[in-house]
Amino acid sequence: MSSEGHPYVPHGLYLPGYVPGFLSMTTILSVYAGVSLVIVLLTWRLSGRCAKISKIDRLLMCWFIFTGLTHIILEGYFAFSPEFYKEKTPNYLAEVWKEYSKGDSRYAARDAGVVAVEGITAVLEGPASLLAVYAIATRKPYSYSLQLAISLGQLYGDAAYFITSFLEGDNFATSPFYYWAYYVGANSSWVVIPALIVIRSWKKISAAFQVPKKTKSR
Amino acid sequence: MSSEGHPYVPHGLYLPGYVPGFLSMTTILSVYAGVSLVIVLLTWRLSGRCAKISKIDRLLMCWFIFTGLTHIILEGYFAFSPEFYKEKTPNYLAEVWKEYSKGDSRYAARDAGVVAVEGITAVLEGPASLLAVYAIATRKPYSYSLQLAISLGQLYGDAAYFITSFLEGDNFATSPFYYWAYYVGANSSWVVIPALIVIRSWKKISAAFQVPKKTKSR
Repeated sequence: MSSEGHPYVPHGLYLPGYVPGFLSMTTILSVYAGVSLVIVLLTWRLSGRCAKISKIDRLLMCWFIFTGLTHIILEGYFAFSPEFYKEKTPNYLAEVWKEYSKGDSRYAARDAGVVAVEGITAVLEGPASLLAVYAIATRKPYSYSLQLAISLGQLYGDAAYFITSFLEGDNFATSPFYYWAYYVGANSSWVVIPALIVIRSWKKISAAFQVPKKTKSR
Repeated sequence: MSSEGHPYVPHGLYLPGYVPGFLSMTTILSVYAGVSLVIVLLTWRLSGRCAKISKIDRLLMCWFIFTGLTHIILEGYFAFSPEFYKEKTPNYLAEVWKEYSKGDSRYAARDAGVVAVEGITAVLEGPASLLAVYAIATRKPYSYSLQLAISLGQLYGDAAYFITSFLEGDNFATSPFYYWAYYVGANSSWVVIPALIVIRSWKKISAAFQVPKKTKSR
């Protein structure tokens, strides 16, 4: 604990009314992993009933339901809860951000860059990700554009998130463990997977424009 | 002039070594408008020689050459010149940002969010815009994906730019004139035009996936 009564770095960060977290890291992560696993398995099962849908598309549906709900519920709560660190009860969503702030104290400090990126992610990319689940399942013609748009948005958010931290001194983690586990580790899936989806969507769209258009009436 | 010797708001902004601009607003804008007009007209003329290219595509080539060079030259200079406000000679690029900072002092103050967005814009979207000119001229199959990606990136940058300012109090302009002329006015083209390009690219891509694929061999 710092002199200000919180575990975050920089220690001088002023967080009046801070209330320490109630849940352990294990509890917080287990709930997130458990709920996510149930939703992903359910999506995998249900997507198997869709006609003519490849295994990759079913995996993409699982990813988009997981990332969409994470954006809307977890990041949506953060974006609109400036005082989460004062929460006096074991509110799970507040606990998540009290814990994650050990990896990046800009969350507790309400850094404008972080709030802007999380707000855009929660309000635009969250619902768009759920739309992507539907678009993939029903093979909509805008499916690849939507996947490209969401994934590029996630990558832009990552870039802004990491660059602003770098420019501000990259010293917002309670310890190297939290730096690597939360700041680097937890975000890495949202770098690697969107990058792969961008490449795939890009190739699919390019292929659609390479098809000879002899059957096109106009 | 504030007590700190600069014209920017907030007046207490500490900018040691600040040197006032040498060029008038009229000179700065005339050079930008004049050079841009020459480049756009040249692109329009040259694009007329490309076979089978529509007027809308020629206009898009003009837009992407203009926005690409603006990103690379103007915004690229800003992103990598933290001390532009100390420039002692009438360096045109420094003058641009000394002047624009009257509309948004976060540029002179080196706000991390602004530098991150400008850096991403200069390094990624600038070269990508020049590639788009080539892709449109040569009708590459990735042309619409590229236009969609660049324009979405510009819109994300706008959103992050305006939201961070709002969250930080929206009080960075020297006067309402500079607020509306620079902060709102100068950026509005980069909201309206990318939005139109996103809609058009999205529709074109969707249309490509709606074409009956009878001629497709696989």
